[in-house]
Order: sequence, then structure tokens, then C-alpha cells
Amino acid sequence: MAMLNSNFNRLNRVYIFPLIEEKLAHFKGDLPLVNLGIGDIALPLSSRIARAICTGVEEMSTSKGIHGYGPAAGYSFLQEAICKEEFAPLGISPDEIFISDGANSDTVNILDLFDGKSTVALMNPTYPAYLDASILRGHTQLLALPCLEENGFSPDLPQGKVSLIYLCSPNNPTGMALSREELQSWVDYALKHKAILLIDNAYEAFITSKEVARSIFELPGALECAIEFRSFSKSAGFTGLRCAYTILPRTVNVEGTSLHTLWMKRQAIKFNGVAYPIQRGAAAVYSPEGRKETQAQIQIYQEGAKLLKGALAQKGLTCYGGVDSPYLWVKTPTGMSSWDFFDHLLERCQILSIPGCGFGEHGEGFVRLSSFTTPETNTLAITRLNGL
Amino acid sequence: MAMLNSNFNRLNRVYIFPLIEEKLAHFKGDLPLVNLGIGDIALPLSSRIARAICTGVEEMSTSKGIHGYGPAAGYSFLQEAICKEEFAPLGISPDEIFISDGANSDTVNILDLFDGKSTVALMNPTYPAYLDASILRGHTQLLALPCLEENGFSPDLPQGKVSLIYLCSPNNPTGMALSREELQSWVDYALKHKAILLIDNAYEAFITSKEVARSIFELPGALECAIEFRSFSKSAGFTGLRCAYTILPRTVNVEGTSLHTLWMKRQAIKFNGVAYPIQRGAAAVYSPEGRKETQAQIQIYQEGAKLLKGALAQKGLTCYGGVDSPYLWVKTPTGMSSWDFFDHLLERCQILSIPGCGFGEHGEGFVRLSSFTTPETNTLAITRLNGL
Repeated sequence: MAMLNSNFNRLNRVYIFPLIEEKLAHFKGDLPLVNLGIGDIALPLSSRIARAICTGVEEMSTSKGIHGYGPAAGYSFLQEAICKEEFAPLGISPDEIFISDGANSDTVNILDLFDGKSTVALMNPTYPAYLDASILRGHTQLLALPCLEENGFSPDLPQGKVSLIYLCSPNNPTGMALSREELQSWVDYALKHKAILLIDNAYEAFITSKEVARSIFELPGALECAIEFRSFSKSAGFTGLRCAYTILPRTVNVEGTSLHTLWMKRQAIKFNGVAYPIQRGAAAVYSPEGRKETQAQIQIYQEGAKLLKGALAQKGLTCYGGVDSPYLWVKTPTGMSSWDFFDHLLERCQILSIPGCGFGEHGEGFVRLSSFTTPETNTLAITRLNGL
Repeated sequence: MAMLNSNFNRLNRVYIFPLIEEKLAHFKGDLPLVNLGIGDIALPLSSRIARAICTGVEEMSTSKGIHGYGPAAGYSFLQEAICKEEFAPLGISPDEIFISDGANSDTVNILDLFDGKSTVALMNPTYPAYLDASILRGHTQLLALPCLEENGFSPDLPQGKVSLIYLCSPNNPTGMALSREELQSWVDYALKHKAILLIDNAYEAFITSKEVARSIFELPGALECAIEFRSFSKSAGFTGLRCAYTILPRTVNVEGTSLHTLWMKRQAIKFNGVAYPIQRGAAAVYSPEGRKETQAQIQIYQEGAKLLKGALAQKGLTCYGGVDSPYLWVKTPTGMSSWDFFDHLLERCQILSIPGCGFGEHGEGFVRLSSFTTPETNTLAITRLNGL
């Protein structure tokens, strides 16, 4: 008799998207909605990247250009392109970079390497997949690391000992990044307690603060205790193309075994790599034209965040993030819950936000606004905020 | 302190590919190798499919055609295209078809839905990822279902009770498919014992025998106990493009819960869908031109299998498969092990095969040859066989 993975019953958090959809179904506004809720790209794919993908596909339709199964860890041309400028100076080699179909996949699949009894520490609020996947994997020792206004959204080190630590920085949804110094304290903690840091750095492209490291591997000791997850999703508009990468140095050992070896095995068994033309498109991100086009898009999103943040401040609202991240973390006016303020923004301004409580209980009292919009939508949103 | 998933230590089968590579490194033949070992496509991508992918990419690079995150279960245009002709008549609806990046991924990820203590029955020999993934997931109750010459490579039903049953049919590597009647006995077993059938049908496009069902869902009762895995990899040359699909009817229940609901949750947490342009390419497989082009390729592989099988028979070799599959399962001459015959084919004919023992101990005494070749390579292989 087949038996279920009983951990599905432990997935008991409230999923906010169905609730939002229900609210929208009943909402009768005069104006079309301005969607600042979504964490998805709003600008078209760079023409240079599009061309590279098509060239790859056309190549595959010729006898000499056939590409069947590729390496599970990705093609070396992409590993090398990623490594060259940023990671080689940090002591990382191309074969320590694993190409995958998404940072979401990698951040949760990495749990396959560890014992299900390990204590997992997670920021709260944060991207919810880490928690859900930890629960499904059977982890019961789950420690919340509160990211609060009081601690500048930079969580305190745990009192006890934890084994695995998820840090999303710049964090989704707070938009706040850990400083170099704060991150170093986590590296030191991990080395002391033989813990592993799982660093989700999917928003690296949005970092502007000098005191924020662009990679955990800039920090002494990180090569022994950290795994970093990166993605082309937000840096190059790949949410609909699915390509990301994970940096796992050979020097990260647990019980004397290199996690690099285990991850290579895990990927070879459970994953067959990313489509060849998509990897060609990702490599084009590093071409002069590709870089120029993708950076121009990031600047548009960054400028949008800045303008939106200014408009919110003018309305007397307290707002965090938006400096190293496309996300703004807006404090609700006194006495209002996340959902109250969600309703308020919807009814008064026809602006769609995401209630902060959807990212963990410590997100209560905030909403997330996203600057993943066109300049036109951003301007419209700012005009609508006058209705508050 | 982080702890490892100790199940990695239980992955103790011999991996044959490194051994093959070592042999090849030391091999000094006069002629270039003919590779009949590989289970990968050898013909270029259909031009119709290539065009559809490029159109999708170009669409994404326009303001009106932006496609960010897609549905985790796939776009409905592809679910509907798949469903329409083949599955709708079997009582399957489009939302019971989940699009993914590979049958390999799905056949192993499906284990996430079940209790790790479930007994798993696996054909032997078969595609090794099911076993490896079951071990990594912590399954210790693993039952081999021998596929032998004596039973026509159709395994007997288990004596005891098992929970999960992997059936790869047409099977890789034996190239033999279960008949409708044989498959029905597994459905009946599953219904009786409340087991779940995990049917890997990645080679469906190669089926020619009338007595072989093209889908498990042709059989009465299967809608209550089976999950079928299909792929565009071999049917449309997608090994380098990564797109597959899993048919999971809502009526498949375990402990009163629909597996459809759980798989939807699992995919939403751990997977972000397949690239939009790749799904556009997959949908083009169902266009008249796409169908024509992909079917022509399958016929080339099928014809190759037939010719190769004839040549092997002429040499007095016993050979199975090749009728419903691109794979030939060649019995070694008396007294020769899989590796002996591998060496023999390599030295005498400069033909690369795969030792059958690499697919499980009951594969000993066989080698697998693949007809995934161009007609030219196939002809060359047949000429080389004269050297035997």
C-alpha cells in the first residue's frame, strides 16, 4: 500500500495568492489596476540575448550543430563566462559553478545533500520556498531569524547551534541587504559551528551600497562554509527562460566530504541540465551589447524604486529597501495590518501590493511593493498614490 | 553542525561511464569509433520546431510579447496540444498534464510525494536513475523485478506487497515493451494492493507492435493507480532542449488524497516551469509540419534498428528489442560477460556499446546497442560487424 509523505500535512502556512485573487475577483474599481505586487520582470528581453538563443536553436537544426544531452552541470562556455570577471578573482574555478533552471530549484534541492534532522535557520520574512521545501524534506527543527525594523532587518545570530542557514540578501521581500560586516559575522558563526550558509543572492544585480558585498566569497572563510545561488531571472530578464547558477566551492566540506562531489552526483541523478540555446542566451549576457542592454533595464527598475520610495515618503509612509533591491518594504500606517493596508492601497489607489505577512509572521505590519515595472506604470503608480 | 544525507553512502553500484571512458583512453584502434553506445539523438532539430522556438524568443523581446514566470505546470496551449488527440479520448483533461524539464526529473522527483519507508519495486535491468533516486530519498525496501530472457523481459508480479512500482516500457535498455495484457496484470495488482504504478513511457514514439498500449490509460483501472511519464526528448529530438510531461489523473488517490493536488504543490514549491519558447517549440511538434518532420526522424531510427538487428542475426547473435524501441539488447556469445563482449566489439569492430550490467545485475550477459544514429553511421556499423 502506497503511503504519502506526511510532511505535506505540515505545510500549514496561509498561501496569500489565492486570497489576493479572491479579493481581486470581488473588487470593483473605476480604474485599471496598477500591479506593484508581482516580482516579475516587466521589460522585453534584450535583443542581443534573443539573437543568441535563436542562433543556438538554428545551430541545433543543422547536422554539424546538433546538441543533445549537455553536461548536467552546464556547458563550460557558460561556466567560464560567469567565472571570468567576477568569480575567478575570488578563487572560484569554472567547474565550481553549476548551471541550473532556477535559483528556486537550487535553493530547495540543495537540501537533498543534508540529513533531514538538521536544524534549519531561516530569515523571517523571506522567500517562502525555503521553508516549504524544508518542511517537505522532513526538517522539524526550524528556527526563525526575525528581520525586524528594530534590527534593521538584519537578523541576530542564533543563540543555539544550527546546521543550515538560509540567508536571502538582498532579501525578498524586505529589499534590505546584509552589510559586509553583518555577513562576515554569519561566516564566522558558520565556521565556528560547522554550519553551512545557503546564500540566495538572486538580486545581486540591484546592489548599489558600497558596504554590501556582491558575493559571499569576497569574505574571508566563506570558501569553507558557503554556497551562493545566483540567477539570470532578475539580472537579465530570464524569469520566462529559466537559467540560474550555483557557486559551490570544492572546499566546502561536511563530515570530511566535499559538498561539490555530492551536488555533482545529485544533479547527475536527478537533473539533465539546461537547454543548450538558453545557455547560449545566458552567455550573451556577458557580451558588451548584452551587458549594456541588461544594465539599462536594471537602471530603469532602480530609478523606478527611487521615485516610488520618494513618493511614499512624501505621503508620510516609512519605507525600507529599494536601494539594493527592486523591492520596497512599506510600513503600514499605525494600527493597520498588512491586509488592511493592502485593501487600502487597492481601494484608494487601485494599486496591487503584497501583504508582508505572506512572507512570514514577522512580515506583519508591512506590504511589499515592486519596482519591476515600466517607467510608465511607475509614473502612474506615483500619481495614484496621491489618492492616499 | 551540518550533517550529510547518509544515503549517499548507499549509492554503491558501479558507474560504468567512467570505466568506459578509461577503456577508450587506452584504446588504440586504426579506425574511428562507431558509437552505438549513446542513448542520444543524432539527427538535427526539426526546422519547424526551431522556427517556433525562435518566434517565441522574438516575441519575448517585444513589449507586447513579454513572458515572465509561467505556470509551474506549464502553459495551457501546450497542455491542450498534448491532450487533444491522444489523451482526451482516454478521459484525461489538459490540467492533468504537467509540463517539465525532463522525464528523468519527474520520474525521480515524484518520490517526494511518498513516504520514504514505502517498498519500491524496480525492473532490473532498467534506467538507473530510479534506483539511485530511491536510495537518496531513503528507501531501503527495494525490490528487483528481473527482466530476463526466460520471462521475455517481462517481469513477474511481486510475491509480497509493494507500494511503488517503476515500469519502464518500452524498457531502456532491453528495448522490450510490456504487452497490453502484461501491463493490465500490473494495473490489477496495483488496484488490489493500493500500489502506484510509475510508468516511464519515454520511448512511446517507437512502439510499432499492435499488442503494446501507447498509454497506460488505455487500460481499465489505470486512471486510479498510474502516473505516466512522457518526453519530447526522443520523440522530437529534445534531449538538448529539455521538455517533457507527466500525466497524473485527479483520480489517483493515496490515503484519500489526490496525488494531483500534492504534485501541483510540490511543483509550485520546487519548480518554476519550462522556458516559454521551449514550450512553444514543443507545441509545434503537433503542427502538421512538425509532426511530419519528427515522424520522419523516428522512421530513420526505426529503420536503423531493423537493419542492425538483421546484421546481428546474420552473425549468429541473439538480439532482442528494436521493434518498439531504438535499443537492441544483444546477448553475448556463450561464456562472455557484458564487459568481455564490450571489449570484443570495440577491438574487432571499433564499435562502442554499453555493457548490460551497467543497468542492473540482471543485465549481465548482454550489451545495449542504440539505433540513434544517422543512416550513414548505421551502415558503417553494419559493415564493421563483418569483422566479428
